[in-house]
Amino acid sequence: MSLESHLKNLRSIIDKKLDEYLPRAMAYPEVIHRAMRYSVFSGGKRLRPILAIESCRACGGNIAKVVPAACAIELIHTYSLVHDDLPAMDDDDTRRGKPALHKKYNEAIAILAGDALLTLAFFAAAGSSSKILEELAGASGTKGMIAGQVVDLEFAGKKKDKKLIHYINTHKTARLFEASCRIGGLAAGARKDKVDALGRFGRALGVSFQIVDDILDGGDYPKTFGRQRAKADALDFARKAKNALQPIGKSSGALLGLVDYSLRRTK
Amino acid sequence: MSLESHLKNLRSIIDKKLDEYLPRAMAYPEVIHRAMRYSVFSGGKRLRPILAIESCRACGGNIAKVVPAACAIELIHTYSLVHDDLPAMDDDDTRRGKPALHKKYNEAIAILAGDALLTLAFFAAAGSSSKILEELAGASGTKGMIAGQVVDLEFAGKKKDKKLIHYINTHKTARLFEASCRIGGLAAGARKDKVDALGRFGRALGVSFQIVDDILDGGDYPKTFGRQRAKADALDFARKAKNALQPIGKSSGALLGLVDYSLRRTK
Repeated sequence: MSLESHLKNLRSIIDKKLDEYLPRAMAYPEVIHRAMRYSVFSGGKRLRPILAIESCRACGGNIAKVVPAACAIELIHTYSLVHDDLPAMDDDDTRRGKPALHKKYNEAIAILAGDALLTLAFFAAAGSSSKILEELAGASGTKGMIAGQVVDLEFAGKKKDKKLIHYINTHKTARLFEASCRIGGLAAGARKDKVDALGRFGRALGVSFQIVDDILDGGDYPKTFGRQRAKADALDFARKAKNALQPIGKSSGALLGLVDYSLRRTK
Repeated sequence: MSLESHLKNLRSIIDKKLDEYLPRAMAYPEVIHRAMRYSVFSGGKRLRPILAIESCRACGGNIAKVVPAACAIELIHTYSLVHDDLPAMDDDDTRRGKPALHKKYNEAIAILAGDALLTLAFFAAAGSSSKILEELAGASGTKGMIAGQVVDLEFAGKKKDKKLIHYINTHKTARLFEASCRIGGLAAGARKDKVDALGRFGRALGVSFQIVDDILDGGDYPKTFGRQRAKADALDFARKAKNALQPIGKSSGALLGLVDYSLRRTK
């Protein structure tokens, strides 16, 4: 099976489960459930939950054990995009070529839908181990994703130096990639050295992914370092990610494939 | 010991633990941690975590088992106030006589601090049972608190009928009271009939509490039904709450005291 059709299969497993967790669109009060569904089913690549599933599989785990937490990660990622787009934050009117949620509905609904997606994430993951829950909440709180967004906003429109851009990328993006991979290992019951290796893999892949993102949409990285240097750094972090997988051994093939997939993508 | 000094003791247990969960004010990025602390330590009554603790105790449980989830409930309550005050929502400039968080800082920080408090709630409760986590996320999601806020906003400035006001009160306020009490029972390992009784107690107390709130600050209830009827209904729901405690038996003294405390309060 090609990587593309393998990813398509995984996406359909995740989407089916997300559809189960999300309240029906016609459940009262309808507007909030329609808004949540609009955000979740808007063409996301599902890369974070796929990383969680493949990390679990690479450690010999049953993927059913990681699917709830994998969905939780995607719900957290989605909430963060909804809130980031708000006028008080990055003030983006569109997301993936469609109106941002606060444009499709209004600001209040966008704030509440983000809150609801974050809350639903922990409802979905409620049956996971406390280590998985701590990983999830730790990565998305003020030592992780939220810290990245706070600092990104603080320096919006100002010149950012290398250290600051690295801080923002590791916190805003790479920390949740790291958590996705660690959670896969934890769900498989893997030993600490394997979980840590998966974490280093996810972190390096996350930085590489963000640099590629910046190259594709004219973000901070190529603006600050130039396009050539950005490309070289994306490759360099991708190589770091691959090297981090050594403790996982032969079963890391699918994860290695995801690194190349992330480098190759055009959106 | 008087009820007042007993409550003061419980508040200091809760505040000490909240202080432990919250990142230091000087931890980078400082602004978000200062904002979270400003909201959490602004003179809240801590009624919801106190209900969780007393419900646990009424079922013979060790209160150490419920304190993390009790703090999570208070963090969720606090995040909901921060987001409710935002200009796109209820647009309140003050909260408990002090500037609302988006006035003290700005809208972006208020949105992110609310998100961070909600995330921290689940970090704090990560070691609790899956039933407790589901109760927590269920009560604060779109079948509970968020549903109440969505409907409240939808009808802002419009005439609300009796059924609608009851819907908003049970969802926006009473559902989290219900969860607080059920979580206390669950943490104590109480039987289902006791947990359900605590839930009915919390729900009725929550409705009574909200009516008293509305009487104290000129909210919907007395506006719609008149002050006399509002007072009678607050008493009626308080009586319902007390009656619901029958399956708990003799150990329900502290919970009964909290009903009278809620009726008597002046803010």
